Amino acid sequence: MSETDERTISIAEADLNDFCREVLKKLDLPANEAGLVADCIVEADLRGVHSHGMIRLPVYVRRLQSGVFNPRPNIRVVRETRTTAVVDGDNGMGQLVSLRAMDLAIEKARDGDCVWVSVGNSNHNGTEAYFAQMAVAHDMIGFCFSVGGINHMTPWGGAEGILGNNPFAIAIPAGDELPVVLDMACSVAARGRVNVAAARGESIPEGWCTDAQGRPTTDPSEALKGFVLPIAGPKGYALTTIIGMLSTMLSGGAFGTDVTHLYDDFERPQNIGHLLGVLPVSSFVDCTEFKRRMDKGIREIKGVKKAPGVTEIFLPGEREHRTLLDRRKTGIPLAVGTVSELRELSEEFGVRLRLK
Amino acid sequence: MSETDERTISIAEADLNDFCREVLKKLDLPANEAGLVADCIVEADLRGVHSHGMIRLPVYVRRLQSGVFNPRPNIRVVRETRTTAVVDGDNGMGQLVSLRAMDLAIEKARDGDCVWVSVGNSNHNGTEAYFAQMAVAHDMIGFCFSVGGINHMTPWGGAEGILGNNPFAIAIPAGDELPVVLDMACSVAARGRVNVAAARGESIPEGWCTDAQGRPTTDPSEALKGFVLPIAGPKGYALTTIIGMLSTMLSGGAFGTDVTHLYDDFERPQNIGHLLGVLPVSSFVDCTEFKRRMDKGIREIKGVKKAPGVTEIFLPGEREHRTLLDRRKTGIPLAVGTVSELRELSEEFGVRLRLK
Repeated sequence: MSETDERTISIAEADLNDFCREVLKKLDLPANEAGLVADCIVEADLRGVHSHGMIRLPVYVRRLQSGVFNPRPNIRVVRETRTTAVVDGDNGMGQLVSLRAMDLAIEKARDGDCVWVSVGNSNHNGTEAYFAQMAVAHDMIGFCFSVGGINHMTPWGGAEGILGNNPFAIAIPAGDELPVVLDMACSVAARGRVNVAAARGESIPEGWCTDAQGRPTTDPSEALKGFVLPIAGPKGYALTTIIGMLSTMLSGGAFGTDVTHLYDDFERPQNIGHLLGVLPVSSFVDCTEFKRRMDKGIREIKGVKKAPGVTEIFLPGEREHRTLLDRRKTGIPLAVGTVSELRELSEEFGVRLRLK
Repeated sequence: MSETDERTISIAEADLNDFCREVLKKLDLPANEAGLVADCIVEADLRGVHSHGMIRLPVYVRRLQSGVFNPRPNIRVVRETRTTAVVDGDNGMGQLVSLRAMDLAIEKARDGDCVWVSVGNSNHNGTEAYFAQMAVAHDMIGFCFSVGGINHMTPWGGAEGILGNNPFAIAIPAGDELPVVLDMACSVAARGRVNVAAARGESIPEGWCTDAQGRPTTDPSEALKGFVLPIAGPKGYALTTIIGMLSTMLSGGAFGTDVTHLYDDFERPQNIGHLLGVLPVSSFVDCTEFKRRMDKGIREIKGVKKAPGVTEIFLPGEREHRTLLDRRKTGIPLAVGTVSELRELSEEFGVRLRLK
């Protein structure tokens, strides 16, 4: 696991993007689509959300190689009204399918309607924020819900993994200030952190995980056989259940026992579902007034009295945006484990990986 | 505080509803509107969500008496498109304003559109689930977001209460199974539980609260001068911020330092904001198929292998619904402290409070 080693190697954004795109092209994605997917993946690393960045490229490659991702999907609208659509992703890469679905939502909302697009037959799409944020440039509030690609969670009181750690994002435009962007999933700690503890022989804090019987554990090896715990117990369980249902029930995406495993099953397509929505601000209020309100609220939060030792208050999404601006200039520090996996791909596909 | 005494007194639903309605009528609410508000309040107690039930009647009464609630609001649409509306609640009771706004959303969505209604100049509306659930009877998914009426939270790293513990609900229809209903706010523990610990001279668990300087505390008296902590730290802070912004920025509802205190300020109207939305299922998929999918998902969750000592798995909203069915038959157990406050109102207004 790359997470077990904290050393990093820096790569320039453009070089990482080129590498990712060229590898995807070798796996039969058209150049334009490969570029769009690379943008999504690299932006996760730019924003410091490495869990959804290049660390995922090896499994995406393996899924493309085994034919369980469709490199050239016929993404199409299977049902449509003036304010809704259902999109069949034709088993394309989740980033590409989600992009198309959000593009469609924004296009349909141009005359001021609230529009919601439900998606089935998609795949793991990386960070939800990427798609929710697409709405912001059009002065719309954006929503993106997805079902997770691994059932790491059990219902509250259960001992069987039939729920994903389902993520969602909401992005709200502002004026002079940055947009406010929530992007979260429903577990206390990501499973990757349990892997790290296991590799180091350390115990994990109480409240992170249960064992396979659903009993609390601080032993990471027992935890890896068990489940990650939801934030705030039953609240997080309720939240992940609702997000999963929103993401799948309108489109027929896989939910519960129908969810196959992103890393363990290279035969059955995952049929991941998403739900994307946009609310055009100007249908409710003059955009200038809305942005004035947002800027005022943001500045109040930024300017709040601080707790001892705190130097700055961050709005949701602000740290990630600042990290992105930094890394655009200075490069993206990837874990050495991730880089060595990328080197293997570099050799396998004859695509050069340029390090800084 | 009524929460300090766990003894209860049982009251029949109809009697509690009558009492609540008659008291509101004495405060100049029209009979029909008083009945609608009573339904909302009593349903919270029926569902076991006492924090938003009759325990709130005394403060509502005091606000009506002091003229800081408008008993006969002219609730009106101030801006409208075919899929959006902005409602001015004219400082009416939040339950009434939210009901009207959800009625409007459902009515506008009858031809299959996704509709979102933003509300300003409203007040504390009790449980969000009540309004989100209204959509379910029309085969729609319902959303309700609100800004809280007290700034009990500080931004992550802050030491100044400028954020509410903002609540939201999402309700999804099912077929033979119960609808799935999420209703949550963003704090680890409700402030009422801190009051209980303070009254008993007990300490509170770590992670519930900070003191006024934003430092962690287990001393409930310090905690009461400070802030309730968000679930999962920065995630809960991000969530409450986003919910607050969704609820106010489109309508001009109060956010941040503009939020006045539900219990401490009887001069300035609160200008509470809400955002309500509906997604009509049949615009995405045949309703029968949708309900089949929901029932399958629900049954899988109910039937999951259980952790040791667990006898049943509950879907979000299921416990509350079951409690409601029980209490419709056997009566509503209210805390003795709440009942004695209601007795005072009974004397003050000459409205009989019938106990079981």
